[in-house]
Amino acid sequence: MNDRQGTIVSLRVLDVRFPTSRHLDGSDAMNLDPDYSAAYVIVGTDRGDGHEGHGLTFTIGRGTEVVVAGIEAIRPLLIGRPLAAFTGAPGEFVHQLTTGDSQLRWLGPEKGVMQLASAAVVNALWDLWAKLAGKPLWKLLSDLSPAQIVDLVDWRYLTDALTPDEARRALDRLVPTRAAREAELRETGYPAYTTSVGWLGYSDDKIRRLSREALGAGFTRFKIKVGANRADDLRRAALVRQEIGPGGVLMVDANQRWDVGEAIDWMTALAPTKPLWIEEPTSPDDILGHAAIARALEPLGIGVATGEMVSNRVVWKQLLAARAAAFCQLDFCRLAGVNEMVATLLLANRFGVPVCPHAGGVGLCEYVQHASIFDYVAVSGSLERRSIEYVDHLHEHFLDPCLIRRGAYQVPTAPGASITMKPASLADHRFPGGAIWRQA
Amino acid sequence: MNDRQGTIVSLRVLDVRFPTSRHLDGSDAMNLDPDYSAAYVIVGTDRGDGHEGHGLTFTIGRGTEVVVAGIEAIRPLLIGRPLAAFTGAPGEFVHQLTTGDSQLRWLGPEKGVMQLASAAVVNALWDLWAKLAGKPLWKLLSDLSPAQIVDLVDWRYLTDALTPDEARRALDRLVPTRAAREAELRETGYPAYTTSVGWLGYSDDKIRRLSREALGAGFTRFKIKVGANRADDLRRAALVRQEIGPGGVLMVDANQRWDVGEAIDWMTALAPTKPLWIEEPTSPDDILGHAAIARALEPLGIGVATGEMVSNRVVWKQLLAARAAAFCQLDFCRLAGVNEMVATLLLANRFGVPVCPHAGGVGLCEYVQHASIFDYVAVSGSLERRSIEYVDHLHEHFLDPCLIRRGAYQVPTAPGASITMKPASLADHRFPGGAIWRQA
Repeated sequence: MNDRQGTIVSLRVLDVRFPTSRHLDGSDAMNLDPDYSAAYVIVGTDRGDGHEGHGLTFTIGRGTEVVVAGIEAIRPLLIGRPLAAFTGAPGEFVHQLTTGDSQLRWLGPEKGVMQLASAAVVNALWDLWAKLAGKPLWKLLSDLSPAQIVDLVDWRYLTDALTPDEARRALDRLVPTRAAREAELRETGYPAYTTSVGWLGYSDDKIRRLSREALGAGFTRFKIKVGANRADDLRRAALVRQEIGPGGVLMVDANQRWDVGEAIDWMTALAPTKPLWIEEPTSPDDILGHAAIARALEPLGIGVATGEMVSNRVVWKQLLAARAAAFCQLDFCRLAGVNEMVATLLLANRFGVPVCPHAGGVGLCEYVQHASIFDYVAVSGSLERRSIEYVDHLHEHFLDPCLIRRGAYQVPTAPGASITMKPASLADHRFPGGAIWRQA
Repeated sequence: MNDRQGTIVSLRVLDVRFPTSRHLDGSDAMNLDPDYSAAYVIVGTDRGDGHEGHGLTFTIGRGTEVVVAGIEAIRPLLIGRPLAAFTGAPGEFVHQLTTGDSQLRWLGPEKGVMQLASAAVVNALWDLWAKLAGKPLWKLLSDLSPAQIVDLVDWRYLTDALTPDEARRALDRLVPTRAAREAELRETGYPAYTTSVGWLGYSDDKIRRLSREALGAGFTRFKIKVGANRADDLRRAALVRQEIGPGGVLMVDANQRWDVGEAIDWMTALAPTKPLWIEEPTSPDDILGHAAIARALEPLGIGVATGEMVSNRVVWKQLLAARAAAFCQLDFCRLAGVNEMVATLLLANRFGVPVCPHAGGVGLCEYVQHASIFDYVAVSGSLERRSIEYVDHLHEHFLDPCLIRRGAYQVPTAPGASITMKPASLADHRFPGGAIWRQA
């Protein structure tokens, strides 16, 4: 079997950008004019069967070319290696790829551009494996044994919080009931929340209209952006609360706008609108700051959510252990791909913190559905206080886009990680040579 | 005056590498085969006086080209701006350069490749300013008023630990005595410690010989690398302790080798050799892990030192506030250059933690002497438990290299940041085209 898997012989790297800043979609208190973008990779083998692994890392425009340079630096670690070296020992292979080169490690370690670059490559390998296995990524992961899942993880620096043995025992307990949860999700889908109603650039009328449309489409959970102007935030939050009623779930997102004291003050003012969480109240690096905010807001019933800029499992370990994050919004590209995503799921489960992955952008919704479904089937076994972010942007560019029905992600069935873009979309949005950018 | 400063019109970016891996100099438990390298920048203006700003960020070989790409991404934020925009408001200018572009900010924020890239550019601007002012960098900084120093800092995310007013008041208290401390240092130099005696690749005989040579040259503080093999470490630490006697200072450096529990066990075993500190016992991202190790080792008289991979002032805030670092080993290139170095000095002073900067590599000794001298003259006013790392590598490539006498850095007197390399050294070590690499 291993011999037949072939050798990794090619890595194509594309800089793909969508001109989203032209319409203020995606604007928040810190990211004023994003052009949703991706450093996109295609891994090829000498198998001759046409299968390729696709992976991307999400960026927001300028600087995508730096991530492309980071991926190029990883190229020599990948080309010429047997694919079986990855599928046979994915934990060890990914460790070598992401931190095994001591000279490249200096550039992080495990953070920033090189971590984003690693994610694209690692996720492409998983996409390829899933396609060869004829399974969607979540199913490939969910069919692994607890020992295999534990072996995906780089345990260095984690053992003061969780040991491999403890992780395996927790996974063991869920094995007998995996099939039942899988069947349940195929029926119901995985709960989603929508961020599409309340970007900062939107007028009150647009927010009201979008809220009603989303309610009509079956959504009961809504997130809005805050942090630019306190009076505006109060009015917009009250407006959405009015639309969704006391039973609806409201979340607010400050995108790192505040200092610690300011976050506590601002959210105390917003507390009457009953938000479930305040997302990214301050610097994503401020573990102790998040913990202080969490302690102050807990009596008001507001949890702290964070994660879209959390670079690695060591930071997650601390955010979870310090009770600094009541919701784990892991990011499929900010972490070094599937393996570190799995590490983070295991840690979140250890500390009883629900995972509500960061999505939106381009491709993140497609990616994270696999994380949450795997989490329910094999890791946490719970849907309590969990949902996946959903933003209705750019899905039309994917061959196997995520599918939302009645406010829930439908379980993907096509082989792979759902991340392969249409060839025409890739060609048109290449930066700077694609048709979309030549017109601009 | 401002008009005469001119406009920034050019940015040259060089990939410069030294083949240090051929001799195992610089080897430690995590960095096995570094080729000390730099992404090197030269900033030019239209002044027509020949003055250029030189800056570098230290790397260890492969991946330098990714930092070069990061610097290229910063180029549009620099070219065409009046130099007076920097010298007139350096805090605001550097903020715009390092985090002002919301699309580039996504790639960090303030960590990894983009932070390393920022450091090279920011430090080149300071080098240029110091050359124009006819002062060494430490003197340019030490002649700023407390209000000007406070304005260098990006205070976002810091105010729960230190406010600008508190910082200014602390600086005010030292103003009357600045001149006396400056005169003292010009006389005595700033204490150094040597890391040259105990790299992992060295034999016991070589360690003994180098220790004696360093003692003869006036050094009383010695650091060795540990973490690969416990028995070896014990033998080597005891050997150095024997050479330097009970009055000498021994420090050990694990370069992130251990998990938290392992660090405590290992250092408990090494405690009889009386190390002053254990450096980088675990992941540089593990603030809470460092704090746990610090608590466990404090009764043994061993402090935790860290910093060479601490990316930004927000992580420093936490390491200091949590008493996770008993010694602040800030890095002049890992942080986004001079401004964030100043922020870290102010934070360290707030928490009473001595600064012992990370040096070695290429150019770091030249850089950090300016930080420590400025710290003594204007920020902490203390030399207690403070010293600057010294490694005797590659200084011959600089026009104005650091100068060590009797175990102390002599105060630099030439204008600038001491970082300008000789043109022939730059030419010969360009990668991959320079003469040194064409031969290889």
